[in-house]
Amino acid sequence: MDASSLRVLIEQVAAGGCTPDEAVRQLRRLPFTDLGFARVDLHRELRLGMPEAVYGPGKTPEHCAAVVEELLGGTDGPVLLTRATEAQVKAASAAAASLGLGPGAISESGAFSTVVFRPAPQRPGTVVVVTAGTADLPVATECAAVLGALGFAPTLLADCGVAGLHRLLAEVDTIAMADAVVVIAGMEGALASVVGGLTPAPVVAVPTSTGYGAALEGVTALLTMLSACSSGITVVGIDNGYGAACAIARLLP
Amino acid sequence: MDASSLRVLIEQVAAGGCTPDEAVRQLRRLPFTDLGFARVDLHRELRLGMPEAVYGPGKTPEHCAAVVEELLGGTDGPVLLTRATEAQVKAASAAAASLGLGPGAISESGAFSTVVFRPAPQRPGTVVVVTAGTADLPVATECAAVLGALGFAPTLLADCGVAGLHRLLAEVDTIAMADAVVVIAGMEGALASVVGGLTPAPVVAVPTSTGYGAALEGVTALLTMLSACSSGITVVGIDNGYGAACAIARLLP
Amino acid sequence: MDASSLRVLIEQVAAGGCTPDEAVRQLRRLPFTDLGFARVDLHRELRLGMPEAVYGPGKTPEHCAAVVEELLGGTDGPVLLTRATEAQVKAASAAAASLGLGPGAISESGAFSTVVFRPAPQRPGTVVVVTAGTADLPVATECAAVLGALGFAPTLLADCGVAGLHRLLAEVDTIAMADAVVVIAGMEGALASVVGGLTPAPVVAVPTSTGYGAALEGVTALLTMLSACSSGITVVGIDNGYGAACAIARLLP
Amino acid sequence: MDASSLRVLIEQVAAGGCTPDEAVRQLRRLPFTDLGFARVDLHRELRLGMPEAVYGPGKTPEHCAAVVEELLGGTDGPVLLTRATEAQVKAASAAAASLGLGPGAISESGAFSTVVFRPAPQRPGTVVVVTAGTADLPVATECAAVLGALGFAPTLLADCGVAGLHRLLAEVDTIAMADAVVVIAGMEGALASVVGGLTPAPVVAVPTSTGYGAALEGVTALLTMLSACSSGITVVGIDNGYGAACAIARLLP
Amino acid sequence: MDASSLRVLIEQVAAGGCTPDEAVRQLRRLPFTDLGFARVDLHRELRLGMPEAVYGPGKTPEHCAAVVEELLGGTDGPVLLTRATEAQVKAASAAAASLGLGPGAISESGAFSTVVFRPAPQRPGTVVVVTAGTADLPVATECAAVLGALGFAPTLLADCGVAGLHRLLAEVDTIAMADAVVVIAGMEGALASVVGGLTPAPVVAVPTSTGYGAALEGVTALLTMLSACSSGITVVGIDNGYGAACAIARLLP
Amino acid sequence: MDASSLRVLIEQVAAGGCTPDEAVRQLRRLPFTDLGFARVDLHRELRLGMPEAVYGPGKTPEHCAAVVEELLGGTDGPVLLTRATEAQVKAASAAAASLGLGPGAISESGAFSTVVFRPAPQRPGTVVVVTAGTADLPVATECAAVLGALGFAPTLLADCGVAGLHRLLAEVDTIAMADAVVVIAGMEGALASVVGGLTPAPVVAVPTSTGYGAALEGVTALLTMLSACSSGITVVGIDNGYGAACAIARLLP
Amino acid sequence: MDASSLRVLIEQVAAGGCTPDEAVRQLRRLPFTDLGFARVDLHRELRLGMPEAVYGPGKTPEHCAAVVEELLGGTDGPVLLTRATEAQVKAASAAAASLGLGPGAISESGAFSTVVFRPAPQRPGTVVVVTAGTADLPVATECAAVLGALGFAPTLLADCGVAGLHRLLAEVDTIAMADAVVVIAGMEGALASVVGGLTPAPVVAVPTSTGYGAALEGVTALLTMLSACSSGITVVGIDNGYGAACAIARLLP
Amino acid sequence: MDASSLRVLIEQVAAGGCTPDEAVRQLRRLPFTDLGFARVDLHRELRLGMPEAVYGPGKTPEHCAAVVEELLGGTDGPVLLTRATEAQVKAASAAAASLGLGPGAISESGAFSTVVFRPAPQRPGTVVVVTAGTADLPVATECAAVLGALGFAPTLLADCGVAGLHRLLAEVDTIAMADAVVVIAGMEGALASVVGGLTPAPVVAVPTSTGYGAALEGVTALLTMLSACSSGITVVGIDNGYGAACAIARLLP
Repeated sequence: MDASSLRVLIEQVAAGGCTPDEAVRQLRRLPFTDLGFARVDLHRELRLGMPEAVYGPGKTPEHCAAVVEELLGGTDGPVLLTRATEAQVKAASAAAASLGLGPGAISESGAFSTVVFRPAPQRPGTVVVVTAGTADLPVATECAAVLGALGFAPTLLADCGVAGLHRLLAEVDTIAMADAVVVIAGMEGALASVVGGLTPAPVVAVPTSTGYGAALEGVTALLTMLSACSSGITVVGIDNGYGAACAIARLLP
Repeated sequence: MDASSLRVLIEQVAAGGCTPDEAVRQLRRLPFTDLGFARVDLHRELRLGMPEAVYGPGKTPEHCAAVVEELLGGTDGPVLLTRATEAQVKAASAAAASLGLGPGAISESGAFSTVVFRPAPQRPGTVVVVTAGTADLPVATECAAVLGALGFAPTLLADCGVAGLHRLLAEVDTIAMADAVVVIAGMEGALASVVGGLTPAPVVAVPTSTGYGAALEGVTALLTMLSACSSGITVVGIDNGYGAACAIARLLP
Repeated sequence: MDASSLRVLIEQVAAGGCTPDEAVRQLRRLPFTDLGFARVDLHRELRLGMPEAVYGPGKTPEHCAAVVEELLGGTDGPVLLTRATEAQVKAASAAAASLGLGPGAISESGAFSTVVFRPAPQRPGTVVVVTAGTADLPVATECAAVLGALGFAPTLLADCGVAGLHRLLAEVDTIAMADAVVVIAGMEGALASVVGGLTPAPVVAVPTSTGYGAALEGVTALLTMLSACSSGITVVGIDNGYGAACAIARLLP
Repeated sequence: MDASSLRVLIEQVAAGGCTPDEAVRQLRRLPFTDLGFARVDLHRELRLGMPEAVYGPGKTPEHCAAVVEELLGGTDGPVLLTRATEAQVKAASAAAASLGLGPGAISESGAFSTVVFRPAPQRPGTVVVVTAGTADLPVATECAAVLGALGFAPTLLADCGVAGLHRLLAEVDTIAMADAVVVIAGMEGALASVVGGLTPAPVVAVPTSTGYGAALEGVTALLTMLSACSSGITVVGIDNGYGAACAIARLLP
Repeated sequence: MDASSLRVLIEQVAAGGCTPDEAVRQLRRLPFTDLGFARVDLHRELRLGMPEAVYGPGKTPEHCAAVVEELLGGTDGPVLLTRATEAQVKAASAAAASLGLGPGAISESGAFSTVVFRPAPQRPGTVVVVTAGTADLPVATECAAVLGALGFAPTLLADCGVAGLHRLLAEVDTIAMADAVVVIAGMEGALASVVGGLTPAPVVAVPTSTGYGAALEGVTALLTMLSACSSGITVVGIDNGYGAACAIARLLP
Repeated sequence: MDASSLRVLIEQVAAGGCTPDEAVRQLRRLPFTDLGFARVDLHRELRLGMPEAVYGPGKTPEHCAAVVEELLGGTDGPVLLTRATEAQVKAASAAAASLGLGPGAISESGAFSTVVFRPAPQRPGTVVVVTAGTADLPVATECAAVLGALGFAPTLLADCGVAGLHRLLAEVDTIAMADAVVVIAGMEGALASVVGGLTPAPVVAVPTSTGYGAALEGVTALLTMLSACSSGITVVGIDNGYGAACAIARLLP
Repeated sequence: MDASSLRVLIEQVAAGGCTPDEAVRQLRRLPFTDLGFARVDLHRELRLGMPEAVYGPGKTPEHCAAVVEELLGGTDGPVLLTRATEAQVKAASAAAASLGLGPGAISESGAFSTVVFRPAPQRPGTVVVVTAGTADLPVATECAAVLGALGFAPTLLADCGVAGLHRLLAEVDTIAMADAVVVIAGMEGALASVVGGLTPAPVVAVPTSTGYGAALEGVTALLTMLSACSSGITVVGIDNGYGAACAIARLLP
Repeated sequence: MDASSLRVLIEQVAAGGCTPDEAVRQLRRLPFTDLGFARVDLHRELRLGMPEAVYGPGKTPEHCAAVVEELLGGTDGPVLLTRATEAQVKAASAAAASLGLGPGAISESGAFSTVVFRPAPQRPGTVVVVTAGTADLPVATECAAVLGALGFAPTLLADCGVAGLHRLLAEVDTIAMADAVVVIAGMEGALASVVGGLTPAPVVAVPTSTGYGAALEGVTALLTMLSACSSGITVVGIDNGYGAACAIARLLP
């Protein structure tokens, strides 16, 4: 809980504008709505500069619809649904429609979709998303969609893997001028090391679960990126394009 | 084998109330029924204060029905079927019906069901089941259903993950007043450490297999919970809501 | 943070007995002492019914001495130092002496020692600690020493591994009458399953890192215990005798 | 290659009964038939006392049929097909029919079947197959079917897991009198240690892939069995009921 | 516990030759001696045809001496100490001397020793121990020493790895005529598969922790042996020469 | 980027035959075509003596068709599509037809196909592909198809596993006379060690994901091959028949 | 290689200010000095805004001295030596002295030292380094020393683990006002999730290798941090305090 | 065993130049000398074009001396000792001296030495050994020493890691003109992918055990290299510089 709001509340109590019982109740109830199966964090955007995304897996379509509706109605910030099935998208869009809102912008990422019901205002930073291969596109698509929901207009550079270095070197200006770079790579994940050696900007690396048997469903790329010889690269979880976008939102204004 | 019953039997032999051959036969045959494919432990409730649950996976519907029937007929204790498919539920319910009993209370946990054919008498302890996210609900549902079968009336607090600490702090009284807490969390499983720091009661942690790639199907949460910096937390296997409920039954009267 | 003390403080502010600034300062400063390299949790015993043990590894002898001194002076509860080297024991004992206290009761656990500077008052529960082999004794010794510090007088049954079941069956009464059992086993860890089938009491299993190559430094026993076919067994981390003792303290009065 | 037959051949050459070219050709061609996709080892039964079983996975139904036909026609020993799909069984049975033979004895093991087209003559040894749970039955069924094909008449004791030791102790005579015991267990695999402590006979342990998440698809039981505290237990691969049966065939007359 | 001795005791009770209290006491006390830190299984040789070896690691020299002394005095069977340090050997030898016995036959296995204080009578079976390389000799030495203690006179064939097949083929007669073969190999462990294809006798494979990085301290050889394409090979734990010897003792008369 | 072409370009600039702007543009644009979702490396065959194969997984049928079309139109070298689904094959064949070319030679490898739209000219080297079992054929088929596309006419020796060494020894001349050998084996992968001991030629080993549980989806065979006791064997990723073929293309003229 | 400098060089060639041969030589030789055993990247600070740190492990003291000397003489940027032994520090300090420079500021991190021979100019960003326990201090010390070398004056908050949440909440203002936060935690690593939920600033998490057995030398904390439920946390390698400092340097001005 | 020599021998038998008994004895005894603890493969150089190197670990100094002496006396080919301790080098050199030969050329590789007692004649191929960092030099030194023993004069390019691509690009001609390249890299191992994209020559990659925690003692680099996006790279075991040199000897004339 945020210290300054705690102090304000205590000062109200001291000033008589709020009874102690009321204060405790406020402290307990304000920042979220309890839907029974979920506690919707209405306060997250304020506290973290990032909305609570609705993560599809493990939720019924009804769960998704209820949380989306709560966020659209209870906050002013961006609202998005990630890793959603067709049924979840449909239910959440109906919920949006019941509030008089449109169905949201849908990006397909492999078998799942990312839906942006309400994006954040535009933000100035230049973000470049680089992928090693075409097979990394689903993760890149999710990442770009979330970056869009957070106010960025990312540039996507697909298929720049190090097996043909010239394909990457051709984009060296774009990469060098970016305020932040997301590198998305499966197989051996070497692209992160090479990009890290080409730019002084923050590099967030996303290992993907693409590749033959020894790629171990992304573990190989993950370990590669964590051990990268280029200093200062940071890493998020396997296939976690959403997390990379959020990391960018933390580090750019 | 239980020492006191051994002594009773030996005393009967000494007193002439039982021949040696009969004693050996009794020692061998009493506590279970051999159905060929299964040895139903009719004695488990007496010995361990816990019934032998019928675990669905790997059994045919006929297997399930036969064991449920044997337990309903051969014991007075609670009878439940876990991780059951629709076909297994149907067959077991028919078996119950053939004994003039109802179909049991069904709780759905993801693709499987927990069915309570005969619950234990009510028990007094206050048990709280906390989940980190909505995706942990299937495991929590199994855990709550088994707790119910064992005589408890657990309180379920869903979606209290540490990404929004205030959602958890809002329930601090409920948690602090519990006689035992089950923490169910996937992803990084940090909730167990935080809850362990808030209550002096026993905390049983259940890692779940939810989360992105690096969650490694629950291994990450499992390791987190085993390494928790809050002292005295204990852990059961991944997704093992059933085991957590049994652990509670061992430690509360 | 504990909800009832928050309410008391807020009521004092409302009643004028405390200024808002003072309230925030109290909320922040009360429960620990910041030694720079460590924040000694003076409040833990009250909150969790368990003292903050001083964990030796990674601390200099001076660190250990300072924290022990702070806890002896700043609390009334039990004070103990775990996994300590000879130099750490010496420094901490000197700190105790500077407060006019004795050197503490030392238990040797392999290369390390557990030192109890001030134990808790006696507690009534009957705790049995069972080990599978002689090689598990260092972990059992730490566990027993911590149980002693927490007020228990545990019974230690050494070398009851399942390779000779009669060694275990000979103790069946002792195990069956215990209020709680700690099972400590390396190699294949099967003892936990067998003990779990003999008693209705809570069973806390501690995997140890003893055994040949395929014991994988305790991982085998850990996995065995997590997968135990006896229901309701809970597990703590590898070689974590301290954690098992704390778990017992949570579940017995 | 077998040294004594090499010597015989060389003596024939020395004696003029065979030209050098012919000898080399014989050395090369005798013991198998090359079907292009497979080299059928017609000599294996003679050399190893065990037939070459036709392992279904990765073979088309036509492959299976051709190898079964070759073995039925080209050897006098037992012929069996393992881990076969329905289509493979059908094709192989048709091949047997084309030689005027019956369809073979089919045992279902989960999704797959074991088919014995021609069994070995009866052998005298007493083999006991013990399983920990009902879920281990598919592996036990394959093991028993292969033992049958190899001439044994195994006794199957199902569901003797250590959670209820009395179920196992009831069979202690059967186990103690066996010439060899196969222990089949998933979950934590502790049964192997306990059985190993009850009998002086050879114990072959088969880990199975049954159990909750931390059973790690059989790896937990495998590690348990390899680390068993009962001396002299040997282990085969996960779910490898076939291999256990062959191991028995090696060690009994 | 052994069923026939149970029956004898019960018959004594029935016949009045033994009071019930005495029977229970006998059942509990007969087969082992409790030294406090260890329960020496005096009955193991009778029950399993194999002595309880004293395993050095984790025991103090005094522990070793006390157990060796108990076994020498309390049984007639073979007595051996494994994986012992120099200090443990010295203490145990002194204990033997105190009983008027010699210091035992010492075999050095790398950093540790195997000491046979009293061997079993000679047994007839022909056992061959084959190693892949010279680096596997320490494990082979332990295995051979334990086989000797159990009454066998094994033949050791060192350095027969498959990189030079002719070195192995040169011993094909020795291998083919053995009653049982122990294959000891590190690195990739392929020797087990090849030997398994050359002999119908039982093959017990011991993976060793020798080899470069990807040998993973024996895990590679272990997995290789468990997956061997030659049917019926069984495996013991990594570096477990002792276990292999015991397995042989189980399967040969 | 290739140093000699860099020098040529710089000399053209110095000689006035090319403006600096043009030089930079050429350096950036020449060697690939950016299709948006993929950067087709038209230059790879020249630079590496190997074409860029179109790897099916993760690409839509339209992606495959577009890249195949670009390569057929934009290069003179071999063009092939690997791990393709039926839909991908169909789309790519239609693209080839739109250029007036035939549908390509299709090899089926399990669930996927390898399609060679334009092979390289014939190359002289003798390549032998040996498999351990019939289940390794899908990987071998892909390897052979790619070798064909690269100009080789490989000899395939199927089912030569070491369980029947004579099956392998029968082919010893073929193996000894090869310029390079590819060994393809799952299960325990021992074949690579044995072949490595029979030939002085380069041996490229491909672990496959065939085999029972402890084969760990190819990891066992991979580790075996990396630890092979025969010196100088090299390894590619699990099931990577394509990579093995490319490795051969690098080492033969 | 940086595109704009390539263009400048090509324009010089076009303008006659540089011959083609000279251009190629410059392209090759400028940015590093080849010391035979190392290629010192004199250009890294310019290109990446970060110096090439001299990483001690695997280098002789002479190696360290030579590279430090080369960097001090050949660049104007910060120069630092990490993970250095006493001998390496001594040799490098002598090298600095030979250039008339002082011995550098030494920070001890467990067994190793970080030495800053020449720091960067001060930078304005507020960086907070939080550790979960005292045992994480060596990694935190390295991180803080490198941050100092890069121009920052970090605030270190030690021992704020989640077992006593109030210790962390007391610092909530400091954390909320930071421009970037480094979270350093071993054991279960839950601190990263909690801090990530308290601040909108970038959070770089460093798992450490502290903790009991199931902490798996840092792997548990690593997986926890990668799976953190708080969005947008990024992670560096285990114990990599250096990498975290470099990541901060990338994302703050 | 080699087929053509088998035929020659059989023809001698047929021609009367050799008795059958003698033939069998020759077949068995010719190609190696049995020293009891080792079977020295005198025939390996002829058969595989590579000598049997004496691998130090696990051998006593006397073992090393005896095998070196046997090889120097019994063959004409190169003789080398790898991974040798100082004592082993001393003993082997004394053995060489006893044959009137010099002490061999010693290369130090970390804690071990490679000693070449007799090198092969010079061979024409151009071999380049590239390392990613200075810490990889011990493995590179062993590799270069073995290449030297096998007749090559390799070029060593140290410290060319991808964090500063220009360091690698400066050597692009040397790499492009090589007949074969060995890439030696720890940490994330990305260098192999990049080199593989720059040259059409065979690339043998050696992962090393250097790097921070997440490098997992070389496993990360190993997985990276196996998953390399540049086609046709082959890999040897972790730190196996010896194996890479042998692989080169197989593929170059």
